[in-house]
Amino acid sequence: MNTIMSTATLNINLAALADNWRDLDSRTGCETAAVVKADGYGLGAGVVARALAGAGARSFFVAVAEEGVILRKALGEGPAISVFSGHMAGDTEMIRDAGLTPMLNSVDQMLRHVEGLPGHPFGLQLDTGMNRLGMEAAEWDAVRELALGQNPRLVMSHLACADTPEHEMNARQLARFHEMTDGIDAPRSLAATGGILLGPEYHFDLTRPGVGLYGGLPFVDARPVVTLDVPVIQVRDVAPGETVGYANAWTADTPSRIATISAGYADGIIRAMGPNAALHAGSTGVPVVGRISMDLIGVDVTALGSDPETLQLIGAHQSVDTVAGFAGTIGYEILTSLGARYRRVYAQ
Amino acid sequence: MNTIMSTATLNINLAALADNWRDLDSRTGCETAAVVKADGYGLGAGVVARALAGAGARSFFVAVAEEGVILRKALGEGPAISVFSGHMAGDTEMIRDAGLTPMLNSVDQMLRHVEGLPGHPFGLQLDTGMNRLGMEAAEWDAVRELALGQNPRLVMSHLACADTPEHEMNARQLARFHEMTDGIDAPRSLAATGGILLGPEYHFDLTRPGVGLYGGLPFVDARPVVTLDVPVIQVRDVAPGETVGYANAWTADTPSRIATISAGYADGIIRAMGPNAALHAGSTGVPVVGRISMDLIGVDVTALGSDPETLQLIGAHQSVDTVAGFAGTIGYEILTSLGARYRRVYAQ
Repeated sequence: MNTIMSTATLNINLAALADNWRDLDSRTGCETAAVVKADGYGLGAGVVARALAGAGARSFFVAVAEEGVILRKALGEGPAISVFSGHMAGDTEMIRDAGLTPMLNSVDQMLRHVEGLPGHPFGLQLDTGMNRLGMEAAEWDAVRELALGQNPRLVMSHLACADTPEHEMNARQLARFHEMTDGIDAPRSLAATGGILLGPEYHFDLTRPGVGLYGGLPFVDARPVVTLDVPVIQVRDVAPGETVGYANAWTADTPSRIATISAGYADGIIRAMGPNAALHAGSTGVPVVGRISMDLIGVDVTALGSDPETLQLIGAHQSVDTVAGFAGTIGYEILTSLGARYRRVYAQ
Repeated sequence: MNTIMSTATLNINLAALADNWRDLDSRTGCETAAVVKADGYGLGAGVVARALAGAGARSFFVAVAEEGVILRKALGEGPAISVFSGHMAGDTEMIRDAGLTPMLNSVDQMLRHVEGLPGHPFGLQLDTGMNRLGMEAAEWDAVRELALGQNPRLVMSHLACADTPEHEMNARQLARFHEMTDGIDAPRSLAATGGILLGPEYHFDLTRPGVGLYGGLPFVDARPVVTLDVPVIQVRDVAPGETVGYANAWTADTPSRIATISAGYADGIIRAMGPNAALHAGSTGVPVVGRISMDLIGVDVTALGSDPETLQLIGAHQSVDTVAGFAGTIGYEILTSLGARYRRVYAQ
């Protein structure tokens, strides 16, 4: 049976995903949650979250309330679903109806929550120096008694430099988190994937791994979760002096065999990676030639003995982080940019 | 009524879209089709195509058969839907059931089509020098009689440098297209948006505008089609010496007011644009500070007299192409990367 379609196939290994969660869970003595924001880092929040629930995760985090509503439908009642952006104007009905737990980031959000949904669960996010989300020390001082009296489900903060273990910012944020929270009764959380790897003093009562679950750095021991295979539409001979693609950006200097594959920047293959990117046919790397276009990419397959039916962008021979390097970015952006046109195939 | 949600709002002006199609149509004496691949350049293929059909478009182009199936459901019977990637292995049922017209790119595709779907409509794509899709001159010579005897609906090619009118490649491709097609009975097409603007000798029987419909360059007279407004989650004072965001990449050198907004690279706001990007509050530009993260961006709003509820990334004060420039890319990539989390609001 010929299974080549005209769009690329994204294989998602749910067993590897679950193994990554168990591995990170085994490195701490506390609860391990799972971050499934941005549609489960591009892999499908519902499927990913159900697989992680099967592995034992009981708490999930999303970025915004709309994601929480979708996730609640996928998970049903039971698991906790927390929202990093907190309780924004317009979110009240979603938070109530989907049973979401907003991580309140400011006094404004605190007041909105206790007025709009008195008695509804919430958590608190504190800023320990990243200056992105969470209450500042002065705000926290002002509402601390009120907030702690309402039984928050979690008090959390986020590390700015956890991917760089030697960065002095890590210890500085840890010290500030202790100053702001020591002695409280509520469970505490500081660590995402990077924080788990920094060691037990960063673990507190709950960790919130994200990128490590999906096979990305800084979790170097992660099992790879995704492979991406792109079908070849056609292959042609190109003579020396001929050009390939938009703006004639690549010129053959020897007789070349050029494949046109069915994916492009509209599928999240970032246009900027063109000059550095390669794909693989088996273990043989083959370079992208010319500009990446919206739906198509040229690849020099001269080195192969025969014309390939597909070429692999992500897999055993180059990781999500390797591909990120082609564009000077991070694996996270490759994952969250994975295209809607890909055929997603989930392996248990 | 407070309509601020926790996710950004993408406003899509279908009247402007239709005006852009009419404007491009008025510049030629031939049929004007519409390219709605990549989910209608990120704006929603079904809605976009119905609006363009309302303006008079009768022929639509997509990249792959799967997109054609979706589009057929949105448009119903009647309009022609052509597929640039042609007839790939595995596509036969989709092409037949959805009544798609593949643009056959090679002898292999030609044989697959006439064997698998004898009598089913098709077009032919010729390579006139871009070396991306289409039959080479030698292939064309070999199958020309056979192919033309089967009554192709269209014979087309694509320009590599149409965005650069002075590029000698344009005249070279035009001459080659004439050599390959003069004297045939089938309708011919060479021009997309850029080709329409090159002048009447590029128009032939049908044009295929894409990016110009959506308000992007090189169609400088286009009406803007999209605006993107991102809600502010919270605003904080940051003292000199404090840092913002991941890796402490930005340090305040004066007392600053920093807004955290609810969008990030998972929404297609390309991470690489961070150091150059700005948003607007009314007509006042405000710079991004620190790294763009997955769901959040820091913005220095010190220059504003009061804290904003939303900030605008795309709109009257900066176009899709301006935003593309922040990342060193082209407006096409900004459009096709527009995030799935945005609330899409269509104005007639």
